[in-house]
Amino acid sequence: MKAEIIAVGSELILGSTLNTNSQYLTKRLSEIGIDVLYHTTLKDNRDQLKEVIDIGLKRADLLIFTGGLGPTGDDFTKEVVSEALGLELVLDNSIEDDIRSYFNKTNKVMTPNNIKQAYIPEGSKPIKNDLGTAPGIFIEKDGKTVVLLPGPPREMKHMFDKYVMPLIKQDYIIKVVTLKTIGIGESNLETIIKDIIEKNDNPTVATYAGDGLVDIKIVARGDNESEVMKLLEETVAKIKDRIGESIYSYNDEGIEEVVFKILKEKNYKIAFAESCTGGLVSSRFTQIPGVSEVFDRGIVTYSNMSKMEELNVSRLTLDRYSAVSEETALEMAKGLMDKTNVDIALSITGYAGPPSGEDEPVGLVYIGIASRDKSKVIKTRLNGDRISIQNKAALKAFNELRKFLLNM
Amino acid sequence: MKAEIIAVGSELILGSTLNTNSQYLTKRLSEIGIDVLYHTTLKDNRDQLKEVIDIGLKRADLLIFTGGLGPTGDDFTKEVVSEALGLELVLDNSIEDDIRSYFNKTNKVMTPNNIKQAYIPEGSKPIKNDLGTAPGIFIEKDGKTVVLLPGPPREMKHMFDKYVMPLIKQDYIIKVVTLKTIGIGESNLETIIKDIIEKNDNPTVATYAGDGLVDIKIVARGDNESEVMKLLEETVAKIKDRIGESIYSYNDEGIEEVVFKILKEKNYKIAFAESCTGGLVSSRFTQIPGVSEVFDRGIVTYSNMSKMEELNVSRLTLDRYSAVSEETALEMAKGLMDKTNVDIALSITGYAGPPSGEDEPVGLVYIGIASRDKSKVIKTRLNGDRISIQNKAALKAFNELRKFLLNM
Repeated sequence: MKAEIIAVGSELILGSTLNTNSQYLTKRLSEIGIDVLYHTTLKDNRDQLKEVIDIGLKRADLLIFTGGLGPTGDDFTKEVVSEALGLELVLDNSIEDDIRSYFNKTNKVMTPNNIKQAYIPEGSKPIKNDLGTAPGIFIEKDGKTVVLLPGPPREMKHMFDKYVMPLIKQDYIIKVVTLKTIGIGESNLETIIKDIIEKNDNPTVATYAGDGLVDIKIVARGDNESEVMKLLEETVAKIKDRIGESIYSYNDEGIEEVVFKILKEKNYKIAFAESCTGGLVSSRFTQIPGVSEVFDRGIVTYSNMSKMEELNVSRLTLDRYSAVSEETALEMAKGLMDKTNVDIALSITGYAGPPSGEDEPVGLVYIGIASRDKSKVIKTRLNGDRISIQNKAALKAFNELRKFLLNM
Repeated sequence: MKAEIIAVGSELILGSTLNTNSQYLTKRLSEIGIDVLYHTTLKDNRDQLKEVIDIGLKRADLLIFTGGLGPTGDDFTKEVVSEALGLELVLDNSIEDDIRSYFNKTNKVMTPNNIKQAYIPEGSKPIKNDLGTAPGIFIEKDGKTVVLLPGPPREMKHMFDKYVMPLIKQDYIIKVVTLKTIGIGESNLETIIKDIIEKNDNPTVATYAGDGLVDIKIVARGDNESEVMKLLEETVAKIKDRIGESIYSYNDEGIEEVVFKILKEKNYKIAFAESCTGGLVSSRFTQIPGVSEVFDRGIVTYSNMSKMEELNVSRLTLDRYSAVSEETALEMAKGLMDKTNVDIALSITGYAGPPSGEDEPVGLVYIGIASRDKSKVIKTRLNGDRISIQNKAALKAFNELRKFLLNM
């Protein structure tokens, strides 16, 4: 099945809002084996929309529209799509009730405009919107499937996952496993598992790179659960054999989350001492809900003075080896262990750039890890601009932590 | 002039890479008065690309392609566009020299494939790529302008701004001013400056909201610099009159950068003590190059113990008023002043959610600020999920800092 995703909204074209809906829908559709061929984005303009629909109906079997379902005069996706398909709009009483009860519940004032949202094309199925007022629409006509969803990502995702996915599911079972890897480049990885990727049958295997990480997505299909699971397990085992050390999650989790779960399971507390990452390690870690169970504190020691005062790094070490050195990284981690009651401490120091002096090796980063009875320092050289080096350093730090923890 | 932006690349369609190029180009084109009507994204597929070009040439005057200019077999944007326009590809010696010298400089191995990049459509202008090997192409034919740019955002942006913008400039002067505001909702702001927005002539005024901030973009055009500047200044003055307090930059700077510049100018040092934001304030601040001139340290006191040990918050205060209270915020900021040598200290404590207890008012945040002789606490209630509350709290913290600093 070939699909096109059409995002309607002047805010997407004028550059004020980044279109993330199309990417989300493509990911979800790929997982069930639907081939998305095009993304089209256009302003709130009836004539343009009409043209885009005509083009879409010619080149795809499934059209998913996002946006333009609201109550205002700018919202006419439903009207124009219905017209293009030759369908009349009819009042749906259940939607009308839903809208009225939404306004009652939220104490907002309902305008006559809102009732416009209760009209749907004849013969179509309304899609419930649990998080807003604009319902979606599911239309099947002349071998084409057309789905209309509201623009706000939260509403759109919820409706798509809960109500649309079951409607467009194929007549076979699809299962997806995502292996998350770190420390192995995408082209290197592709070479190592080339034969598995190129088989490209069932399951299909594809790599997705970004920001120093590469995900491997394995999609299997079959008539029943056990058949599909068997296919997946065989392929996962083959890949694990070759690059097992680089895989940090078999379950589509972020590396911070993996570290969090290991700490929680071991009942360990952790603290961070950061220099070049400036708090990014702490900040990423504390995006996880419930992290207070394992996270005690983070110290961003940006100045040399703060490294001495907060972490007891010696003046001699800073003078002799500089703030970016194995010795400083080690003293930072050990100093943090000494001042706290945690089980493990991580330090990170390096040059994120741009260079302030001539002999500053931008991208040189040291990561120190200390527990009560062990410690180590990892030296690495990262590339990219300041923000990219900070991001890669933080990811590398979490991965080194993960490996250290697994041997604790 | 009507434009369409066409992004070519399977990685954009398969969902592994978010398409940010189209948004960037639209913003830049809007600034010089070019109306972008469509964004189209498609896979690396010759037939689809051919169709998209035909559609584009019918509905737009300016087509900008990104992606598919690399040396591999998947890269054929140039070939397919040339074919569609009926242009032969010819070897450009200056590009060949550039590519050879790039490989010499970076010590990478050049393959015969790379020479493919030195061929350009007859009569077109090559666009230099200072940051990579794939040159861009600028074509004018039959009243249409077609621009080809490489996909990597860093290369693409640099080439567009430096080389393409001057080529597609209109025959009048365009100047843009971006006013950055905080603390005033978009619809509220639109009401206050409704008459100015609705004039919508020259200059045009538009608002762009995101993440608690609203930008106001003012675009003026005219025959000469002084005429354009006068138009801009008049409009800026009008807007300043009404919402001057909410404007933190007249110069398109981030709020962190504004705070950094004030600190630098006053020769002040700063330190942060964070709880609910978990290091986000430090992390955002240290994304600015050169921030070590003003930033001493940050302490992420996540546990109560760390608040007591690091910042000397009293056990009594924590017990009586809890960790999220005006009293704790104040003691955090004052404690940080006492232990450091900085001129100003900021603290932040609150509930980022999700709620761990029944009576936890998610979104309640206290921001404390202390200097040697003054201190204050700001209470606020933010909405959204965990990450959104953390982001909004960090932005609010920077804005409160900015206001405090201006009165110091």
